[in-house]
Amino acid sequence: MVNTYGKKVSALSVPERLLLGPGPSNSHPLVLQALANQPVGHLDPYYIDLMAEVQALLRHVWQTENRLTLPMSGTGSAAMEATIANIVEPGDTVLVGIKGYFGNRLADMASRYQAKVQTIEKSWGEVFSIEELEQALNNYRPSVLALVHAETSTGVCQPMDGVGDLCRKYNCLLVLDTVTSLGSVPVFLDQWKVDLAYSCSQKGLSCPPGLGPFTMNKRAEEKLKNRKGKVPNWYLDVSLLNKYWGSDRVYHHTAPVNMNFGIRESLRLLIDEGLENSWKRHIKNANLLWSGLEKLGLELHVDEAYRLPTLTTVKIPDGVDGKAFSLHLLNSFGVEIGGGLGELAGKVWRIGLMGYNSKKENVDKILNLFDTELSRFKS
Amino acid sequence: MVNTYGKKVSALSVPERLLLGPGPSNSHPLVLQALANQPVGHLDPYYIDLMAEVQALLRHVWQTENRLTLPMSGTGSAAMEATIANIVEPGDTVLVGIKGYFGNRLADMASRYQAKVQTIEKSWGEVFSIEELEQALNNYRPSVLALVHAETSTGVCQPMDGVGDLCRKYNCLLVLDTVTSLGSVPVFLDQWKVDLAYSCSQKGLSCPPGLGPFTMNKRAEEKLKNRKGKVPNWYLDVSLLNKYWGSDRVYHHTAPVNMNFGIRESLRLLIDEGLENSWKRHIKNANLLWSGLEKLGLELHVDEAYRLPTLTTVKIPDGVDGKAFSLHLLNSFGVEIGGGLGELAGKVWRIGLMGYNSKKENVDKILNLFDTELSRFKS
Repeated sequence: MVNTYGKKVSALSVPERLLLGPGPSNSHPLVLQALANQPVGHLDPYYIDLMAEVQALLRHVWQTENRLTLPMSGTGSAAMEATIANIVEPGDTVLVGIKGYFGNRLADMASRYQAKVQTIEKSWGEVFSIEELEQALNNYRPSVLALVHAETSTGVCQPMDGVGDLCRKYNCLLVLDTVTSLGSVPVFLDQWKVDLAYSCSQKGLSCPPGLGPFTMNKRAEEKLKNRKGKVPNWYLDVSLLNKYWGSDRVYHHTAPVNMNFGIRESLRLLIDEGLENSWKRHIKNANLLWSGLEKLGLELHVDEAYRLPTLTTVKIPDGVDGKAFSLHLLNSFGVEIGGGLGELAGKVWRIGLMGYNSKKENVDKILNLFDTELSRFKS
Repeated sequence: MVNTYGKKVSALSVPERLLLGPGPSNSHPLVLQALANQPVGHLDPYYIDLMAEVQALLRHVWQTENRLTLPMSGTGSAAMEATIANIVEPGDTVLVGIKGYFGNRLADMASRYQAKVQTIEKSWGEVFSIEELEQALNNYRPSVLALVHAETSTGVCQPMDGVGDLCRKYNCLLVLDTVTSLGSVPVFLDQWKVDLAYSCSQKGLSCPPGLGPFTMNKRAEEKLKNRKGKVPNWYLDVSLLNKYWGSDRVYHHTAPVNMNFGIRESLRLLIDEGLENSWKRHIKNANLLWSGLEKLGLELHVDEAYRLPTLTTVKIPDGVDGKAFSLHLLNSFGVEIGGGLGELAGKVWRIGLMGYNSKKENVDKILNLFDTELSRFKS
């Protein structure tokens, strides 16, 4: 006897939102159109060509020549885990620089792969100096240093000059989180000597969430090749994935075909604009936002030198219920901004200007809303 | 200095395919339309309601009351790995019934989670009898028995009568692969006493690939709760995921929002048709296909009693180059059928009639193509 479903389900009707939070950001309309194509088979010659295109485009956006560059069939967190799962062996020392929420996540993941996890920490809103990093490398002599380039929880951009050289000097691999920088903030993986990196589809790439770009260089491949045992994660095992994404085209899992249509289109649009033009657009609109917020008497959480153009943390003024204000923006205007995480919970709002959403009209809109609506929430 | 991308990338132009292989199948047009909505935030009140709807709809399609029912943010293989990752502890004995490609995958995954893996095997195209299963349970006394209900590699449907009772008798958890059965072939998880199950979005649910429905009951939750260590897979850790999908709504990862729009719509359409009506439609069209193929002098690989309505394995006649024939169908008619995997490579074609694609006009089309085109490939 089949149980019946008790009620009528109405057709999908999604409310319109302007997503100016920590992500997802809105998608480019052509990317959404790409998603709506009928799927093709994951071994269809057309799809095989599309995979190669996506790989080449991702390499360009990351400014890398890494052969092993591909979108993981999951979100950015899956790609984060893929970097750890593939190169950490039980007992390896992994040093994680924690200056926000996502540093903590890296440490949690590394511990699940039986790493000996060591951490260095900074307040949420600061960056590591090259001296602090060298001291920690010298102390802990790790196999892996994991850093977050663009901390979505704090709005901080970690300077990368010299970090890769240090990692080579101390003979460790450098893992870099570029979730909130790829496509919108300068990233030069090869020049920076980054060994593994990951990102997401829903921020600088203007595509919905669902894919996690991943890349690793020859040094990282070497560590993977010399593992004593299998990668303890089947789905994210790059040695298997490479048989599908590499020239063999051996079936691994059924690819999320439509999401790959989407990211291919989003990368094409980024190349069309020009990578440097996109970077310039993001910093220009961020500057407009920053000066506008300060003109309204609001204070920014991060020192200007380290501010991320994609994600701005704004201090919630004393006496304001930050959550009530952001709920008001969502319910009355369909505009999403984010709240603080961890150390910054209740202390900041997070405003994102990422990919398709980094444009002057959005800056004007959010500034206008802060101008007209915030006063109602002041006690 | 930014490296430039050497060439112009043309706009996406996806060829039209009728997907009559092992999946993905074509999606319902309303599901594709759902995907093309602008995303909303993964903590948006609208999205939180949608998550609850998706869970309730999945429970219905699986005929289960399991609280922990949710779509994993990856493909079916991720959901498969989630069943293993959450309930296997190092040293646990996992018994895998292998009668096709996906049984082997389960065994590989279980070994990566440090299980002591035991297997029972049947030829690809056969099923296990209840006596064979009991004997193996009695021999190996496993913590987990993993079986494939609908083997996509062989076209076999494993009878489930009495299997759940056996697993309770021998005090082990029952994991069931319903990748090629959910929505199109009768599945009664609770009645069958299945403890964990997984599926995919791109077959019986008429949605593109990218989500992996997952469910576990109280018995499985108990095993998870009593683990000695953390789940050695962060992305698929149900104890973390449940804080997001359960009532706490604690952020875990940024959900693939648009894919969830899609699966919500696909489940709605399935409920609209009626689950039993969908099952009837699949068996009716499968019968048309089977009798039509036999009329053309072709032989089916699986005994009628165990044949899957969703996936039919057809023996490639002597002297025919099976791969050349399927390539011809793809290139000349835009119709995809599959080839054999593993033991059946080069021996069978695999014809899928799943979800949206299970309709008479598709049966007529593929029969007509076998009728008119196959003779050219006979030597």
